[in-house]
Amino acid sequence: MSMRLRMGMIGGGPGAFIGPVHRIAAELDREIELVAGAFSSDAARSSAAGDFYRIDPARAYPDVAAMLAAEKARPDGVDFIAVVSPNHHHLPAARAALEAGFPVISDKPMTATLDEARELAALLQQAALPYGLTYTYSGYPMAREARARIAAGELGTIRKVVVEYSQGWLSQPAEGKQAEWRVDPARAGMGGCIGDIGVHAFHLAEFVTGLRVAQILPDLAAVVPGRVLDDDCSILLRFENGARGVLLASQIEVGELNGVRIRVYGDKAGLSWQQEEPNTMLLKHLDGRTEVLRAGTPQTRASVRTPGGHPEGYLEAFANLYRDFAKVLRGEPGSLLPGATDGLRGMTFIDTAVRASASQAGWVALTV
Amino acid sequence: MSMRLRMGMIGGGPGAFIGPVHRIAAELDREIELVAGAFSSDAARSSAAGDFYRIDPARAYPDVAAMLAAEKARPDGVDFIAVVSPNHHHLPAARAALEAGFPVISDKPMTATLDEARELAALLQQAALPYGLTYTYSGYPMAREARARIAAGELGTIRKVVVEYSQGWLSQPAEGKQAEWRVDPARAGMGGCIGDIGVHAFHLAEFVTGLRVAQILPDLAAVVPGRVLDDDCSILLRFENGARGVLLASQIEVGELNGVRIRVYGDKAGLSWQQEEPNTMLLKHLDGRTEVLRAGTPQTRASVRTPGGHPEGYLEAFANLYRDFAKVLRGEPGSLLPGATDGLRGMTFIDTAVRASASQAGWVALTV
Amino acid sequence: MSMRLRMGMIGGGPGAFIGPVHRIAAELDREIELVAGAFSSDAARSSAAGDFYRIDPARAYPDVAAMLAAEKARPDGVDFIAVVSPNHHHLPAARAALEAGFPVISDKPMTATLDEARELAALLQQAALPYGLTYTYSGYPMAREARARIAAGELGTIRKVVVEYSQGWLSQPAEGKQAEWRVDPARAGMGGCIGDIGVHAFHLAEFVTGLRVAQILPDLAAVVPGRVLDDDCSILLRFENGARGVLLASQIEVGELNGVRIRVYGDKAGLSWQQEEPNTMLLKHLDGRTEVLRAGTPQTRASVRTPGGHPEGYLEAFANLYRDFAKVLRGEPGSLLPGATDGLRGMTFIDTAVRASASQAGWVALTV
Amino acid sequence: MSMRLRMGMIGGGPGAFIGPVHRIAAELDREIELVAGAFSSDAARSSAAGDFYRIDPARAYPDVAAMLAAEKARPDGVDFIAVVSPNHHHLPAARAALEAGFPVISDKPMTATLDEARELAALLQQAALPYGLTYTYSGYPMAREARARIAAGELGTIRKVVVEYSQGWLSQPAEGKQAEWRVDPARAGMGGCIGDIGVHAFHLAEFVTGLRVAQILPDLAAVVPGRVLDDDCSILLRFENGARGVLLASQIEVGELNGVRIRVYGDKAGLSWQQEEPNTMLLKHLDGRTEVLRAGTPQTRASVRTPGGHPEGYLEAFANLYRDFAKVLRGEPGSLLPGATDGLRGMTFIDTAVRASASQAGWVALTV
Repeated sequence: MSMRLRMGMIGGGPGAFIGPVHRIAAELDREIELVAGAFSSDAARSSAAGDFYRIDPARAYPDVAAMLAAEKARPDGVDFIAVVSPNHHHLPAARAALEAGFPVISDKPMTATLDEARELAALLQQAALPYGLTYTYSGYPMAREARARIAAGELGTIRKVVVEYSQGWLSQPAEGKQAEWRVDPARAGMGGCIGDIGVHAFHLAEFVTGLRVAQILPDLAAVVPGRVLDDDCSILLRFENGARGVLLASQIEVGELNGVRIRVYGDKAGLSWQQEEPNTMLLKHLDGRTEVLRAGTPQTRASVRTPGGHPEGYLEAFANLYRDFAKVLRGEPGSLLPGATDGLRGMTFIDTAVRASASQAGWVALTV
Repeated sequence: MSMRLRMGMIGGGPGAFIGPVHRIAAELDREIELVAGAFSSDAARSSAAGDFYRIDPARAYPDVAAMLAAEKARPDGVDFIAVVSPNHHHLPAARAALEAGFPVISDKPMTATLDEARELAALLQQAALPYGLTYTYSGYPMAREARARIAAGELGTIRKVVVEYSQGWLSQPAEGKQAEWRVDPARAGMGGCIGDIGVHAFHLAEFVTGLRVAQILPDLAAVVPGRVLDDDCSILLRFENGARGVLLASQIEVGELNGVRIRVYGDKAGLSWQQEEPNTMLLKHLDGRTEVLRAGTPQTRASVRTPGGHPEGYLEAFANLYRDFAKVLRGEPGSLLPGATDGLRGMTFIDTAVRASASQAGWVALTV
Repeated sequence: MSMRLRMGMIGGGPGAFIGPVHRIAAELDREIELVAGAFSSDAARSSAAGDFYRIDPARAYPDVAAMLAAEKARPDGVDFIAVVSPNHHHLPAARAALEAGFPVISDKPMTATLDEARELAALLQQAALPYGLTYTYSGYPMAREARARIAAGELGTIRKVVVEYSQGWLSQPAEGKQAEWRVDPARAGMGGCIGDIGVHAFHLAEFVTGLRVAQILPDLAAVVPGRVLDDDCSILLRFENGARGVLLASQIEVGELNGVRIRVYGDKAGLSWQQEEPNTMLLKHLDGRTEVLRAGTPQTRASVRTPGGHPEGYLEAFANLYRDFAKVLRGEPGSLLPGATDGLRGMTFIDTAVRASASQAGWVALTV
Repeated sequence: MSMRLRMGMIGGGPGAFIGPVHRIAAELDREIELVAGAFSSDAARSSAAGDFYRIDPARAYPDVAAMLAAEKARPDGVDFIAVVSPNHHHLPAARAALEAGFPVISDKPMTATLDEARELAALLQQAALPYGLTYTYSGYPMAREARARIAAGELGTIRKVVVEYSQGWLSQPAEGKQAEWRVDPARAGMGGCIGDIGVHAFHLAEFVTGLRVAQILPDLAAVVPGRVLDDDCSILLRFENGARGVLLASQIEVGELNGVRIRVYGDKAGLSWQQEEPNTMLLKHLDGRTEVLRAGTPQTRASVRTPGGHPEGYLEAFANLYRDFAKVLRGEPGSLLPGATDGLRGMTFIDTAVRASASQAGWVALTV
């Protein structure tokens, strides 16, 4: 029996949505166990979160430095750090963990700004420690199935990509606690919708197609009165092979919940997948024939935990990313977990889109 | 009893898809009867089409001039002319009919070029005769329901529109007879995909929202090797009220059949409709509640011929346009049939998109 | 050119739902033309209906006998009679037409009672005239596609059939004019829901599978307080080859519109189709693979009027039955239109189900 | 901080599907931790399973008795036992655990036979220890939402229930390891399909409606040649309030994966839910209006772990049952976990259906 890997968490304090998600995802396959955390910069809140997560109270630390020092000193200290705090903490948290010698897995985007991302990429190169980024949607079995089928040439040469991330929860001026830091440049970074969800769509498009976006023509808007950061993005894409694409991301599409959708067309076939019904993918052939591919059936090479017809969802997709990270930490092959390169590309995308949209620059290259 | 209106057809000869569609649509409600036609410029083919349509053989004419002269002379001559020939015939056919004093209903687009459209608009103003354009998708009950609900303010201020027309049948270099004239600039006009289907999406967006598109930023491409006209279009939109939008039209999205879809978001609600399942519309509210509206139920003000649950489709939508035209001819109110203004707007859209895409002009105004 | 066949209608007066449906269906392909009618037993109402249908006022007759006599005497008299009146008129109307020498197409069920059906079957044998029954759902292209694929062995040996017809419009005690005669034994016959819609499901199951139902175990109920006839039916089926089945029909399933659905499973594959989205059929294979078949694509042998992606519906399905009838009248092959045998089977089904349910007889044979 | 509850598992050895499911479900909310197991009656296999689950090797026991003795003796011994072995082990495993003083949560059905179920019910009454049964589908948020809305009267008086469990994986004579014990009367009990999946549908119908089934009329068949136990079941239901229903369960519906579906109709509204797209429920109103309810939105009182649009599935539903069991063990209110009464009802249903079908007894009462 190999032991479970021990995880320390930065962020994920009371009221956070994403902290419990990381905890469940990390532990789902029993490869990993949450044992410590600096869940909040407020000691009492960090302690309360430790209780919530049912970890040893002694290991719910008042701050990051304390956690790293104490865990480093323990024989059963954490094996890696998960960074799940708001964007502007991503760099300092990752830096501290790396400097203390810990591998890092981080929520996306990589950092709050492109400069920070470059700094982190440099740190990672020096540290030579594993680093993973949880672009959730690339963890879905059918997104991986799509990637595998495209890589195997089933769609032929890719010509067209339409990728969307459609939400409506920021369609009004004030939308509660979860919205707060996301619409504040100081905490979210320079991008609003584009940094919060647009970058997910960007990564998904590159992940599924195996192609890099070469140029973009962005149209970003702050639609809701009084909003500083963008809340609606329409971006034309050109991929490195000449394929065309469109990326739509919005947080003001009233009534939309979490509409991540992708359609890819090659010269032989097309496919479509949407996250809200994630266990199904349509494969469309030249002759008009459409196949419904279901996760967990022999037709899909997707890695699932249950047979076809037993739906899996967001948490299981997220867990696939942690399973990949465990593979990396154990030196096993097969991980598809995004890393620093994806992170830098994502930050370049955000930075370029925000600047080019503001200056109405037309088509601009994505230079990473 | 009021008598049926008598229709003469220009175009719609053997092998044409759209001729029989116009015939069925015109006659569906027994308001109109096809009695004559110049179905082809080849006399034998026109005669064969006359047999196919089961009209009096004497009224299947060898050419347009012969039909117009003969029908004008008959006491039971046609009441109006339907133009269903390829785009480059639209102007001359309409002109001849108008000059002979007949009202005209025409397949879209209005003409092959913007200059022709302007000429036709001028002719129409002189002639002061009824003119209708069959933008089919505006005939669907649920598209009209969407328009009515938006007009009634149920969505609030419109902020975002995503409209698509997705096909795959031109994804390969040669696609048979129906494709032939559509990819030939001499017969289709300057636009390929944009003129064939993009303009449908454009009209639908304006029809449903009741808003005019003020500016566009087009990206048109001829994706299939050897193709001269565009076969894939991605166009950013700005509406007159500042709302943003995206229009996607493609004929190379392998496996897509006739994917006309529209989503509209206001500050109070959003809606979505797609033509391939036309009897259903989703209405999404701020609070996350989604309503499924079905054609033929008391919730929908839509005009259908059968009760809810008895699906209607493309032919019935088309018939709604002819029913509107009959209203116009009889001097009755309530028609939603597009006319010269819509036609000119459509041609301006095509012309502007083709030019601005070629010159990479960025945002350009639609000046009709 | 072959001339259009001339149709005379019995029933279909003001306020009737099914009269205009028959008219549109009959005329859709221009094979047939409505020219005369005895639309109501009230002369003024028959005349008003004649105006509504825009036929020659002289041919809107005050009663059936008048129509038959007058039309027989005309050189351009009707070629056949369509019976669209309530069930208890089906026999007398058909008898009169047959005696006058006219072929008959009739709305279902064949008659109001089994005895009447036997009488009509005998009359038909004597008369040796064409007779068709409009079991609408067998006119849908995808129902025919299903039948063809099963006949070709694609599903292997049929083992299981689940067929449903689900409505909710009679869920309350009083439901308006359309409901009136349907819940009255004197006009509807001995069956309520089973005669109105259950028999459609029964025919569809036999039509699609090509198998006859050998035994049934019915459970019929009058659920709504005060109702005399059944409004909810659950019936176990045994087919002649031993396959098992279930037939569900209800008019009290609140919120259901016109939910005709069928699933058939063989030892090689299964298929499912539902009328409310009629252009799609799912074909499910042993290995978990599912195909989406779309009407109008090369994968389907279905006869449609428009290419894939242009939805057709109820009226076009109905028109396919009339097209079949025209084939029969013209002596052409290829009709799938149900006739007297199907009619007798349907009436036997209704009669047997009503009696066996009332007596709680358990499994009973369907002996036609 | 309250500590995690410690779980010992009986069954779930190498190759088992349901063992890992119970482990993930139990641990998902960090209320419970798997710490010990008698995973197989083969010591080596039990040990291998312990490694697989990454528990302390000393706590992977060679047999049930050894586990119970050892764990009872430990200060940190298990708090309860989960029984996940094949049906014929359910009674002996539960008995041993109860006799050792441990609460029990068990996979369904309660036991292999009705007599065993009665014995276990009696044991439970004596032991006065918590007991839970994992009828998985009652753990789905939207199944609970349906129950809550019906309990609140939103559907009015319930009149009709259609519940199905449709699978195809046993449509051929031999279907691999998972099928082996399920088709063997010695291990599965007297019911095949009805005990494996039919009883799930039965429980779901009673759970959602809050009504008990009073009478059944079962038609069970062994369709696949050579099969001893039933593999296809059609059962008419009568509920205690007079409502009618149909229960369909099949394992020979080729191509179906895990088609659990339920529709309930009252005199005010109807609802439908299906497990393969579990986060959506349709609520249909008298006036034709349909609402789409989504898990995780304010419209649903459902307890989910992620906001609307982030799909949850089978594992999360299962986890809801374990969360309920944890509540019971901690003495907290709010559990909806099925228990001995549901278990006895389920076994009575299986026993009655098998016997009444064999003897063609017609309607029989369910007497628990």
